[in-house]
Amino acid sequence: MIIDHLEEPLPGSSLLPTPSGDAYTDPEIFGTEQTEIFEKMWNCVLRADALPAPGHWQKATIGREEIIVVHTRKAGIQAYFNVCAHRGMRVCTAESGKNKTLQCGYHAWTYALEGDLVAAPNLTSMPDVDRKEYGLKPVHVRQWLGYVWVCLAEEPPDFEQEVLGEVRTRFGEVESIDNYGIENLKLGETKTYDVAANWKLIIENFMECYHCATIHPELTEVIPEFADGLASQRKNGEVHGSNFGEEIQGFTVDGTASGVAELPAIAPDQDRKYFAITVKPQVFINTVPDHVIIHRTFPVSESRTVVECDWLFLPEVVEHVQAGELDISKSVELFHRVNQQDFQACELTQPSMSSAAYASGGALVPSEHHIQEFHSWWYQRLGLQAPLPAASGSEKVA
Amino acid sequence: MIIDHLEEPLPGSSLLPTPSGDAYTDPEIFGTEQTEIFEKMWNCVLRADALPAPGHWQKATIGREEIIVVHTRKAGIQAYFNVCAHRGMRVCTAESGKNKTLQCGYHAWTYALEGDLVAAPNLTSMPDVDRKEYGLKPVHVRQWLGYVWVCLAEEPPDFEQEVLGEVRTRFGEVESIDNYGIENLKLGETKTYDVAANWKLIIENFMECYHCATIHPELTEVIPEFADGLASQRKNGEVHGSNFGEEIQGFTVDGTASGVAELPAIAPDQDRKYFAITVKPQVFINTVPDHVIIHRTFPVSESRTVVECDWLFLPEVVEHVQAGELDISKSVELFHRVNQQDFQACELTQPSMSSAAYASGGALVPSEHHIQEFHSWWYQRLGLQAPLPAASGSEKVA
Amino acid sequence: MIIDHLEEPLPGSSLLPTPSGDAYTDPEIFGTEQTEIFEKMWNCVLRADALPAPGHWQKATIGREEIIVVHTRKAGIQAYFNVCAHRGMRVCTAESGKNKTLQCGYHAWTYALEGDLVAAPNLTSMPDVDRKEYGLKPVHVRQWLGYVWVCLAEEPPDFEQEVLGEVRTRFGEVESIDNYGIENLKLGETKTYDVAANWKLIIENFMECYHCATIHPELTEVIPEFADGLASQRKNGEVHGSNFGEEIQGFTVDGTASGVAELPAIAPDQDRKYFAITVKPQVFINTVPDHVIIHRTFPVSESRTVVECDWLFLPEVVEHVQAGELDISKSVELFHRVNQQDFQACELTQPSMSSAAYASGGALVPSEHHIQEFHSWWYQRLGLQAPLPAASGSEKVA
Repeated sequence: MIIDHLEEPLPGSSLLPTPSGDAYTDPEIFGTEQTEIFEKMWNCVLRADALPAPGHWQKATIGREEIIVVHTRKAGIQAYFNVCAHRGMRVCTAESGKNKTLQCGYHAWTYALEGDLVAAPNLTSMPDVDRKEYGLKPVHVRQWLGYVWVCLAEEPPDFEQEVLGEVRTRFGEVESIDNYGIENLKLGETKTYDVAANWKLIIENFMECYHCATIHPELTEVIPEFADGLASQRKNGEVHGSNFGEEIQGFTVDGTASGVAELPAIAPDQDRKYFAITVKPQVFINTVPDHVIIHRTFPVSESRTVVECDWLFLPEVVEHVQAGELDISKSVELFHRVNQQDFQACELTQPSMSSAAYASGGALVPSEHHIQEFHSWWYQRLGLQAPLPAASGSEKVA
Repeated sequence: MIIDHLEEPLPGSSLLPTPSGDAYTDPEIFGTEQTEIFEKMWNCVLRADALPAPGHWQKATIGREEIIVVHTRKAGIQAYFNVCAHRGMRVCTAESGKNKTLQCGYHAWTYALEGDLVAAPNLTSMPDVDRKEYGLKPVHVRQWLGYVWVCLAEEPPDFEQEVLGEVRTRFGEVESIDNYGIENLKLGETKTYDVAANWKLIIENFMECYHCATIHPELTEVIPEFADGLASQRKNGEVHGSNFGEEIQGFTVDGTASGVAELPAIAPDQDRKYFAITVKPQVFINTVPDHVIIHRTFPVSESRTVVECDWLFLPEVVEHVQAGELDISKSVELFHRVNQQDFQACELTQPSMSSAAYASGGALVPSEHHIQEFHSWWYQRLGLQAPLPAASGSEKVA
Repeated sequence: MIIDHLEEPLPGSSLLPTPSGDAYTDPEIFGTEQTEIFEKMWNCVLRADALPAPGHWQKATIGREEIIVVHTRKAGIQAYFNVCAHRGMRVCTAESGKNKTLQCGYHAWTYALEGDLVAAPNLTSMPDVDRKEYGLKPVHVRQWLGYVWVCLAEEPPDFEQEVLGEVRTRFGEVESIDNYGIENLKLGETKTYDVAANWKLIIENFMECYHCATIHPELTEVIPEFADGLASQRKNGEVHGSNFGEEIQGFTVDGTASGVAELPAIAPDQDRKYFAITVKPQVFINTVPDHVIIHRTFPVSESRTVVECDWLFLPEVVEHVQAGELDISKSVELFHRVNQQDFQACELTQPSMSSAAYASGGALVPSEHHIQEFHSWWYQRLGLQAPLPAASGSEKVA
């Protein structure tokens, strides 16, 4: 594994080295990322209202683990490793379901929704069995923004500091995101993208808008300042709201009015603006006055990432859509195209990551400085020393 | 590679640790298993009567090697690596055939059925060539129960001790299996199962009947004691015959009479009973009064195993079936369902083997003690030290 | 990695050891071959007339790198890594095209055909950017025989010595190949073969004709001396022209006249003869009086190689074919069959390369001595010590 130079930008530098390709192509580094990032940090898994009542459960994959998220009878929503304590078989084999207990199909070991072992053949002749110890292994759970967040670590990092703190730093005050009332919104549409690229390329792409003029014609039509390459996440420590164009009537694929009711509590300076933040390691939050778009990324291998994107609207909007009285497809289509355009760019970047021509990293222009911060964070998470800048690179840009 | 604790059951223990998931999911460990187990031990390959006359040959894969099993003119059935001594090409490229000699299709090097080089272009100008030395590399061969058994090792283990000994230990006296006259039976049906699970899960599944009540409704109908989870292989050092239910008329999918003649030499205490033994590393033998079912497993990777299952009947039964005068499908269907049920359970267990929730192994109930003996054998074969039991596990079950 | 014995042939020896299977099956050895052979030596990539005018470009893969070969405005044909200097995306995404500049589709960094960066969004605000330094990374280029040859190494080996020297040694004087005027011929037909075999098996196959009698009935009909196993490349340091059979009227699949005009400048002793040479590591040149057949091999993995085969004729022949006035299919079909026959043999040899039965290598007959020289070259290129001959092998052949 060769990790190339990464440095603070030199004064006046316009091009910065990035880590070399191994970071994007080595299965071993990907394994370390799973261990040190995805299996230790908080992951946003699924919408809590997907499990409306006790007994509802749904499977998810976090890092390399399959988990079951369950609406319990006594303890709200909980999550467990989907591994029977007896011989390890998958306890839940469908994608989702509704059951009074969770029973393994191999030897009929049966678990309460709260996770402890409640029945097993011959269990009466095994009096010493601790029903909790031989229950399903629990996973830490939190709810925020209407989503279930889980952490596989035995000792999870502090949710307030690591997740809310990330948003606070970027979004200004945490209150300002509260104006959107995301926890009360409903799912208008969801799309899944299977992307043949490393997860870091997807994050880096989301962090800069230098590419917007080239690949996002619809988006730059709606938000003209993106054509200048200035990302929404541009000001140090604060999110910048990107203004809609003067003629633009809505955040839709053609800029016409969406016909969708605005979120009632947004502040005046949140009107006619798009905000976006990254909650590392796997969530993007995008807000506009009448809906919120949330991406969750699930790395599958060093060169494959599944992205799930939700479009969230007011409950009455979703009701009208379901009744056939309202059409949100123009709103959905805008970011669906952005997603497709971004992920194609990532897929065309992935194969070069192992090229000798990229061995000392590419170049970062000043408006891509967020990527450099992301790289610093990555080195820290993996316990790696960011290499010194290559002499040639630093001299060149001085 | 982390191999977890494995121990003798503690007095009164009801739950035992098992090896951790690496043993089931690491390609390197699988490679060692190929070297130390499948390529050193005796493997049951094919039914000898599949090669009825000199010239008949059939290919097989043992460990990572392709071999040819040949009915020779002078030496009965022999086997060779399917590798030309000249430049290595596969000598036989079809699955089976009948030929007077075995000729490589690349440079026409030609081998006698007995393996030595008998002709090659320009061979007369190569007088020094030792026809035996440049013949096909032989594989050790034995016949038993009507099957050809082969061993790839230069120095094979003693067949009587390792193979017959295994049966003797389990079946009581070797004579008792002789009552079934398996070597004279004929193939009534054969089925191949491609199972997405490690070979050890398949063996472990076969070794316990604690799962029977849950996944084998037809089998427990025929053999009611299986519903209590007691395996046929349960008594130390001896096979236990499992009784048919009182109302049961035959070992068929619905318990009705099979219409098939009983094997003439079985003992009275073999009537209305099912016996089963495992011949490590890859054979299961199941006997009932009117037929015998033999499984041969062929590991392909750490997560894939091919199982071939034969249903053997008296020659006259097979003749009647071929003449359309007799139907054995009810007999075959019973164990075909058992196979499907078992292999599905194994496939749903395989993905959990690498879970952190299974890192210290699962639990074994007392009726699964054969599995623990199998794990001890596995550690020995691989030259590994079985780790000490985890403190938590041993305290729990004390 | 175990590389087996390889030695100079003993006096009078008829069988020689070859390297063991790891050399053909180990992905790590294949990686070293990519680094030390294909990414350091000259590779024949594509026909220069495929890029007839400035702006034409075509992609190719050399070693593990994707490159773009471009007909520039000011500097003839040049080649670059297909990697944007900014964030690494593939600059060209189609297989070929015609453009005034080469523009990356991600952030619109735009390169001159000559490779330097000529435009990028906000480039005016990045005054320090060196347009050459942040241009496309160049690849060394030469033209010979009408083909573009490239070398990825920073310091390429001497083309005259390494490429022309190889031909000179084998073909006698370099002038003699010039008689065929290959650089002025045109493509009559091209075929691509995706071969499930290691690239070395394909070279070794091309180097000997001991297999011709067995697998090439059409070829040995046209060139009867091949039936004796004597390859065209047989005399030390010199190519031997293999004579057409007396009744043969043309180098066609059935030996009838080709109807194709002979190449005007060939020498009398090149008439009615077939010549063949190997230009290591990836080119085979075959000449007959009225056309030339050129193979370029592109290793994809340790067990997969893509071979592209061109049939080259006089320009007027190709014109007549395109006008429907002439049929070259009988000429093309002969070597197309040879290719198919050879590659099938290679594919049936590949799986044995990892067999224990081939662990000390196979046998080489005297007419296969070129293969031994190839093995010596391979050991040298990889910086490996060719092991001493196995005692058993050397005694046997004494």
